[in-house]
Amino acid sequence: MPADPFQWLTDARRLREKAGLVRALRPRTGQERELDLAGNDYLGLSRHPEVTRAAAEAAHRWGAGATGSRLVTGSTALHAELEAELADFCGFEAALVLSSGYCANLAATTALGSRDALLVSDAANHASLIDGCRLARARTAVVPHADAEAAARALHGHHGPALLLTESVFSVDGDAAPLPELSAVVRRHGAGLLIDEAHSLGVVGDGGRGAAHAAGLAGSDDTVLTLTLSKALGSQGGAVLGPRHVIDHLVNEARTLIFDTGLAPAATGAALAALRVLRREPERAARVTAATRLLHDRLTAAGLDAAPPAAAVLSVRAPSPEAAVRWAADCRDRGLRAACFRPPSVPDGISRLRLTLRADLDDEELAEAVRVVTGTAPRPA
Amino acid sequence: MPADPFQWLTDARRLREKAGLVRALRPRTGQERELDLAGNDYLGLSRHPEVTRAAAEAAHRWGAGATGSRLVTGSTALHAELEAELADFCGFEAALVLSSGYCANLAATTALGSRDALLVSDAANHASLIDGCRLARARTAVVPHADAEAAARALHGHHGPALLLTESVFSVDGDAAPLPELSAVVRRHGAGLLIDEAHSLGVVGDGGRGAAHAAGLAGSDDTVLTLTLSKALGSQGGAVLGPRHVIDHLVNEARTLIFDTGLAPAATGAALAALRVLRREPERAARVTAATRLLHDRLTAAGLDAAPPAAAVLSVRAPSPEAAVRWAADCRDRGLRAACFRPPSVPDGISRLRLTLRADLDDEELAEAVRVVTGTAPRPA
Repeated sequence: MPADPFQWLTDARRLREKAGLVRALRPRTGQERELDLAGNDYLGLSRHPEVTRAAAEAAHRWGAGATGSRLVTGSTALHAELEAELADFCGFEAALVLSSGYCANLAATTALGSRDALLVSDAANHASLIDGCRLARARTAVVPHADAEAAARALHGHHGPALLLTESVFSVDGDAAPLPELSAVVRRHGAGLLIDEAHSLGVVGDGGRGAAHAAGLAGSDDTVLTLTLSKALGSQGGAVLGPRHVIDHLVNEARTLIFDTGLAPAATGAALAALRVLRREPERAARVTAATRLLHDRLTAAGLDAAPPAAAVLSVRAPSPEAAVRWAADCRDRGLRAACFRPPSVPDGISRLRLTLRADLDDEELAEAVRVVTGTAPRPA
Repeated sequence: MPADPFQWLTDARRLREKAGLVRALRPRTGQERELDLAGNDYLGLSRHPEVTRAAAEAAHRWGAGATGSRLVTGSTALHAELEAELADFCGFEAALVLSSGYCANLAATTALGSRDALLVSDAANHASLIDGCRLARARTAVVPHADAEAAARALHGHHGPALLLTESVFSVDGDAAPLPELSAVVRRHGAGLLIDEAHSLGVVGDGGRGAAHAAGLAGSDDTVLTLTLSKALGSQGGAVLGPRHVIDHLVNEARTLIFDTGLAPAATGAALAALRVLRREPERAARVTAATRLLHDRLTAAGLDAAPPAAAVLSVRAPSPEAAVRWAADCRDRGLRAACFRPPSVPDGISRLRLTLRADLDDEELAEAVRVVTGTAPRPA
């Protein structure tokens, strides 16, 4: 038997064990009775009967898979319908659906990050935007978090195409990007603005139209959005929205579109149904943001260090990675599921208990969340 | 109004137009009556009633989306069940399901391509393996297609982790990698072997167990497989198979697992149902490979230049990109859907008519395919 070529992984495992950073999958059984404040199903639409029915109907009508790249056999009328409604809802000319939000960010960043371009990326951007920058042929400048002046300095003196990349609501702390300031900066420098609305769509702005819409940037020539269909819309997939010619460029150049199978019809149909529920019941967006602010205020009043939430993500600081892990475990023991964010998946090295809210939580569930999170909170060192 | 920062895309569009290389999405309406030899639904399982029913049931039972990363709320018992059955079917210890085959290749390549590693990549490898190499911190050596000696030379003298990356059946020409030779090379050099079975699973080997299984590599310590759930299994998603500790490493390190929403329950359930149909009806695999060989033989007998097929992909050379485009269009006019592969999406610059077979095609459909493809073939220049 030859030597094991993956022997070196043992060292990596030991390092993880020593640092208390071992991750493992814990499949849900479907029998959980816990209060879930860890998922991204912000509007509670993943289990909405109209949404699951649409998934089932799409599988029956179109098949379980798209059968090929969107450019070959993988585009259906259902994909086109979803694209038209997403673009219309957010106020953009055109949309392109991909198989995940991750792939949507890779598509937009690589297709717009040509060799002579400059990508200016917020230091707190999501892994998929970072990987997009790494894959693009462009030069990337990483700038301090939510700092429009730093972005301006990075753009200064650059000639040729430039694109500023930001999330509108950041995934770790749930804080908002200063979109009006960032937009002023890119316009002053003739750059484009790419806004990842993963945590804003369905939650922020008029009826959940997102932060770009709220900032008056919908449909502008210089703005491109990326979305996920797997959070507020309760399904799977991602999308890029923008001017028609930008979307056409992605169809021609984006490798995660050209070389990936199209989004499954069930996920496409489910996202479309969820979007229609959201249009009919825009109060879902207001409900989840109000619940998040309420939880923030109560936890802050109890002395916890929670970042002011811009959407449905509420991040509460923990004194150490170990304390964060124990906190999440203690919450779990008391029937509340919360996420624990800690190094290396947080760029700033700060460990947090991360809570995500849902539009369908009732007052008693919110009160229980306050009781459990405060009752299990680690004492400051 | 500020200047349009995406004005530069106009030049890119003009270049594409001039070269006759404009791509556009053409959504299926569901009313097509054409003979489809362009999709990757090799076993015809995408529309199998057990498969679409499983998709619908999973959406009803588990919801339309996974609601989060596999590490937070996005793992269900259904994902675990699919992983166990995939691993068992292909003869490996463990499996990890991701949201696409693209993301599976990014996961395996980046997690195993650490900074001091060497990645040796076949020149004809799929875009997702190429992008994985670009994202990994490792050095990459691209070696001539299907050339075990070249791979040996690239590995010679390297100290530290090394991984040889190959498709088992290549997506463009449908030809097979020399797996026994490649395996001997990696063993001589203490390297690992990553085999992308996207076009082999369900088609090649004992009952569709894939090319690695057929080559006696199933379950070996030094072999890692990547699979797609969107081709022979008719669904969406991807997977990585290998020794348990390799899969555990990916759970801890692969960014497309950690930072992506889990595969939707409908796609997970559909892939599981398709795998069970395949186990029960292993003759589907033999049927599609026999049909592909038959088509190859008839087209070759008619004087066309078709590469000997290893699975269900049959590639026929065209004298120019324009001729390939016209050939595919003429096939379409006569009711046959075929893909046209041409630069820049083929690395070797050769344009082709690319036909993919399905296990459920009957003799008359195959005869019609021969008539249409030969009847529309471009005359040599």
